[in-house]
Amino acid sequence: MRTGVATLSLSGRLVDKLHAIAAAGFDGVEVFDADLVGCPLPPREVAALCADLGLAIDLFQPVRDAAGVPAHAWAATRRRVVAKLDVAAELGAPVVLLCSHVGADAVADHDVVAEQLRSLGDEAAARGIVLAFEALAWGRHLDRVGQAWDVVRRADHPAVTLAVDTFHVLARGDDGSALAGVPGERIGFLQVADAPLKDMDVLEWSRHFRCFPGQGTLDVTGVVAATLGAGYAGPVSLEVFSDVVRESDQHVTARDAHRSLRFLEDQLALRPGSDGFRVPVTAAPPVPERVDLAFLEVADPDRSPATTGLLAGLGFRHVAQHRSKPVQWWRQGGAHVVLNQTPGADPTAHALGLATPRVEAVAARAKALAWPEVDRTRGDGEALLPGITSPGSTHLFLSADAGSPDHWQDDFVPLPDAPPEGHPGWVGLDHVGLSVEPDRLDEEVGFLRGVLGLVPSAVEEFWEPLGRLRSRALRPAAGAARLVVNVGEGDRGQRRRPGVNQVAFACEDLLAEVRALRARGVALMPVPDNYYVDLAARTDLPPARIEELRAHGVLHDASPDGELLHVYTDVLPTGFYVELLQRTGAYDGYGSVNTQLRLAVQQGAG
Amino acid sequence: MRTGVATLSLSGRLVDKLHAIAAAGFDGVEVFDADLVGCPLPPREVAALCADLGLAIDLFQPVRDAAGVPAHAWAATRRRVVAKLDVAAELGAPVVLLCSHVGADAVADHDVVAEQLRSLGDEAAARGIVLAFEALAWGRHLDRVGQAWDVVRRADHPAVTLAVDTFHVLARGDDGSALAGVPGERIGFLQVADAPLKDMDVLEWSRHFRCFPGQGTLDVTGVVAATLGAGYAGPVSLEVFSDVVRESDQHVTARDAHRSLRFLEDQLALRPGSDGFRVPVTAAPPVPERVDLAFLEVADPDRSPATTGLLAGLGFRHVAQHRSKPVQWWRQGGAHVVLNQTPGADPTAHALGLATPRVEAVAARAKALAWPEVDRTRGDGEALLPGITSPGSTHLFLSADAGSPDHWQDDFVPLPDAPPEGHPGWVGLDHVGLSVEPDRLDEEVGFLRGVLGLVPSAVEEFWEPLGRLRSRALRPAAGAARLVVNVGEGDRGQRRRPGVNQVAFACEDLLAEVRALRARGVALMPVPDNYYVDLAARTDLPPARIEELRAHGVLHDASPDGELLHVYTDVLPTGFYVELLQRTGAYDGYGSVNTQLRLAVQQGAG
Repeated sequence: MRTGVATLSLSGRLVDKLHAIAAAGFDGVEVFDADLVGCPLPPREVAALCADLGLAIDLFQPVRDAAGVPAHAWAATRRRVVAKLDVAAELGAPVVLLCSHVGADAVADHDVVAEQLRSLGDEAAARGIVLAFEALAWGRHLDRVGQAWDVVRRADHPAVTLAVDTFHVLARGDDGSALAGVPGERIGFLQVADAPLKDMDVLEWSRHFRCFPGQGTLDVTGVVAATLGAGYAGPVSLEVFSDVVRESDQHVTARDAHRSLRFLEDQLALRPGSDGFRVPVTAAPPVPERVDLAFLEVADPDRSPATTGLLAGLGFRHVAQHRSKPVQWWRQGGAHVVLNQTPGADPTAHALGLATPRVEAVAARAKALAWPEVDRTRGDGEALLPGITSPGSTHLFLSADAGSPDHWQDDFVPLPDAPPEGHPGWVGLDHVGLSVEPDRLDEEVGFLRGVLGLVPSAVEEFWEPLGRLRSRALRPAAGAARLVVNVGEGDRGQRRRPGVNQVAFACEDLLAEVRALRARGVALMPVPDNYYVDLAARTDLPPARIEELRAHGVLHDASPDGELLHVYTDVLPTGFYVELLQRTGAYDGYGSVNTQLRLAVQQGAG
Repeated sequence: MRTGVATLSLSGRLVDKLHAIAAAGFDGVEVFDADLVGCPLPPREVAALCADLGLAIDLFQPVRDAAGVPAHAWAATRRRVVAKLDVAAELGAPVVLLCSHVGADAVADHDVVAEQLRSLGDEAAARGIVLAFEALAWGRHLDRVGQAWDVVRRADHPAVTLAVDTFHVLARGDDGSALAGVPGERIGFLQVADAPLKDMDVLEWSRHFRCFPGQGTLDVTGVVAATLGAGYAGPVSLEVFSDVVRESDQHVTARDAHRSLRFLEDQLALRPGSDGFRVPVTAAPPVPERVDLAFLEVADPDRSPATTGLLAGLGFRHVAQHRSKPVQWWRQGGAHVVLNQTPGADPTAHALGLATPRVEAVAARAKALAWPEVDRTRGDGEALLPGITSPGSTHLFLSADAGSPDHWQDDFVPLPDAPPEGHPGWVGLDHVGLSVEPDRLDEEVGFLRGVLGLVPSAVEEFWEPLGRLRSRALRPAAGAARLVVNVGEGDRGQRRRPGVNQVAFACEDLLAEVRALRARGVALMPVPDNYYVDLAARTDLPPARIEELRAHGVLHDASPDGELLHVYTDVLPTGFYVELLQRTGAYDGYGSVNTQLRLAVQQGAG
């Protein structure tokens, strides 16, 4: 699959953008007119630079309000478009993108638009250029891809083709089926962008919120598959503008962009019929069959008594010692914590152990999708426990499933007095919250989705006393891993450190566990009495039950067929806080009804 | 006018909010339910704290989905509302806000909603409480104030009244006339919020973009005037939530909020019929009759040869010396620069001199609207030249008009060889750009609009190489002062310093002036040749004219009946850049078609 990206998808000056795009491995580039206008190099020198960098100029774009103008404005429009065709010819761009007219004076009659396109097609053909006509989602009359195709069909000119932009197609509620009957050779260009679903003015949505495929919620793959399925054989080119991209380093963006096309190609290859595409698409090694949470690794390079005291207070027991490293394994029932006491290590670098059937398959997939290399160094005779750091700075270790030779527990030697497996206690890790910087959220979600096959839910947003919190939960198609990516915004200097910020364990009798925790001296987050007044108002829990929850300081949530009970510690010296929860019935959420309260109390106490 | 504010309008914990609200001088407060739920104090202690602080609790809010629920859900809803009425009674809140139902199961029939409200009215009355019913702009069936009034009228219960919220009224396209025929004594509460006009999901708009009256673009005053005109005599209470407010210090927000109500009161008092309000509203001293740009003050504490060299290069001449201070007056035709060489002063603290007929009136208005005191110290025998610093850290000096005793020029003694007034040269200052921090934009606009009577235009947004730029231009109703407030976002460490960042002078023959500038060795921003190719494409300027502009490196813009020619220096060591422009015909803009290019070239050169 031939990859491209528009220069407007990156920050910086045109020359810097071109270097970043080439370095990231793209085949081609769309040159954005305004980038060229602001560039001191004339078009021929831009073309020479691209050639030096090994980048093809696939498209010059956009020429706006190019067709569908009223008769009195046609001469000026024609002159303007022809002047841009001359620029494109100097650039050596084989295709020029024309956009439908957005002005109040736009002409609705498809035959008039087609006639103007035909006239421009003659000029393009004379310069060896093909026009690709795009229905902007906010075009005045032409705002759907089917309308643009009707106009192109009526223009009936070899140099007048259809441009498909996944954002414009999907933003108007169309999908790949809108391309039914369009011959692939009449599609002149394919631009791709994803976006989170937003009910807002589509132009504002497009300008501020586009993102790379796999980061948003649109069915980008479906539209691309329909385009390739029709027989389109040109570049698959990203056109993504957003507040995040405007403010990010162009090299980071270019790498992220290129990865997103590898992921898109993988998704395409998995679709039935993809072997019939004229463009060969290659699947990456598959996502893991299942992903579970194996253990939490807590960094403790200073051997802090507070940390071991905390683990003991939570009911964990030191059950085994690593064969070769100063690393302890602590267990509380089915919940596992690995305490890494390697001197000199970063005391904030906590990590998450994930269990998956075939570790090497994940490493191979990460490599194929151009994510950072998985680190596979291991000690002599130790389990293969490769590590990978996410774009948002989360440290992940991958372990094979229990029973496999590369299971993480095989590296530990049990202590003589360790209780046997199956000792009663907590169920295990329920979910882990990962804090990332605001402009890394999309990239982190792209990583977890692309490499591990986790499926992101919608973004939830909460107020906290000094800012806002955005959360996005992810789960695998199979397996019990639950991750929640958290982004704090505007918390005035209280920014969360990137990495593990919440560790939730599950148990089977929360009230009993709370009594045990308190008996062991663990301080739990105080819950205001007002919370239970509110709980009594908004639920039909019996007064005795409310009083029981109040006496234990337990928070409550319910779904139609299940219930959640949960408690929190305050934020610990380790930088994260611990949640203990009990799910009953089919309750499947995260107690987000109580998130604002937790944020208020946790930060109020600080 | 009795002033109030909702606790959800501020960041922080409930107790901190209440202290900030009291300190800012509010009469009363709306207690937000979620703030109370997260507060360790029981309602009676919150009430006692408010009493200690001299704050009345005017409202408890909101009870959501309170009426219009289907029959099967009524018992649970009724229990929930009654429990909240008990909380309100403990707080001593005389009014409780109920919101229309947003759920998919909401009942459309006004008689059913009225019947439920009547039942709740009995419960409220038994507790000495009045219900105020609000149509949320995103209510399922009840989303307009006229519908809410119809329901309240049908409920026909003394404890069931209408709540008016300016945002909800205006967001649905209604205005004050929607209250025609509503008796004031049936309006139980008035909430006010402004917002910039946005075409987006109204719930998202409300949650993220509300602002204080005078900062947005909605006709808040009209709805408040209609409410007071109907005879409403209760508090005028702010309910503003936004990303900015969530992230700001609560004391800053509280002061800003209180000022906005002083401004609203002033606007109300100027409306015909306001003397008939049951609530007396007091006008502040009037805005200045006119505002003109008098001079730019450049800080030069180090007597930098670069600064005087720059002024000489621009064609300014040192024409006079301050009577008592190391301050020079430089002139280029009708353009004036004051060079402040006071040792030890902040070298970035440039200032703007504004001329207005009666300086003391501005000071009095600023004081009445609770803006920072205008500094009126002056030297013996010197003109009254009071200074004021805007919320965004812009330093302003106010001068009387020429001919008045307090004219700024009276403090200067002409140099012997100074050319006489009327010397040919530049016309004068055209506009000045002021950079402010992103979360100060609303406050800065509120200041310039409130104190000086400047009228803000819509926000314009531009891409720059490393981020985005938002601009808002302001002009007085009379006078030639033009100010442009600029906010840079995400420019990765290149954040603009707050204060003067652009100084635009006007001249009558730009091409001649450019030749003169170049002859004096002034470096002007280079304009890429590609710009002129684009200019030729998109305008009908004759080739010879394009070539003339290109040869001079001059930028061009046009409106239907006028033209702008302009050039820029690079950003100077002083921290600002200079623009020289020539307006012809009725051109009235700022050349924003060229802003992106300027940003690209200025930053690319850095």
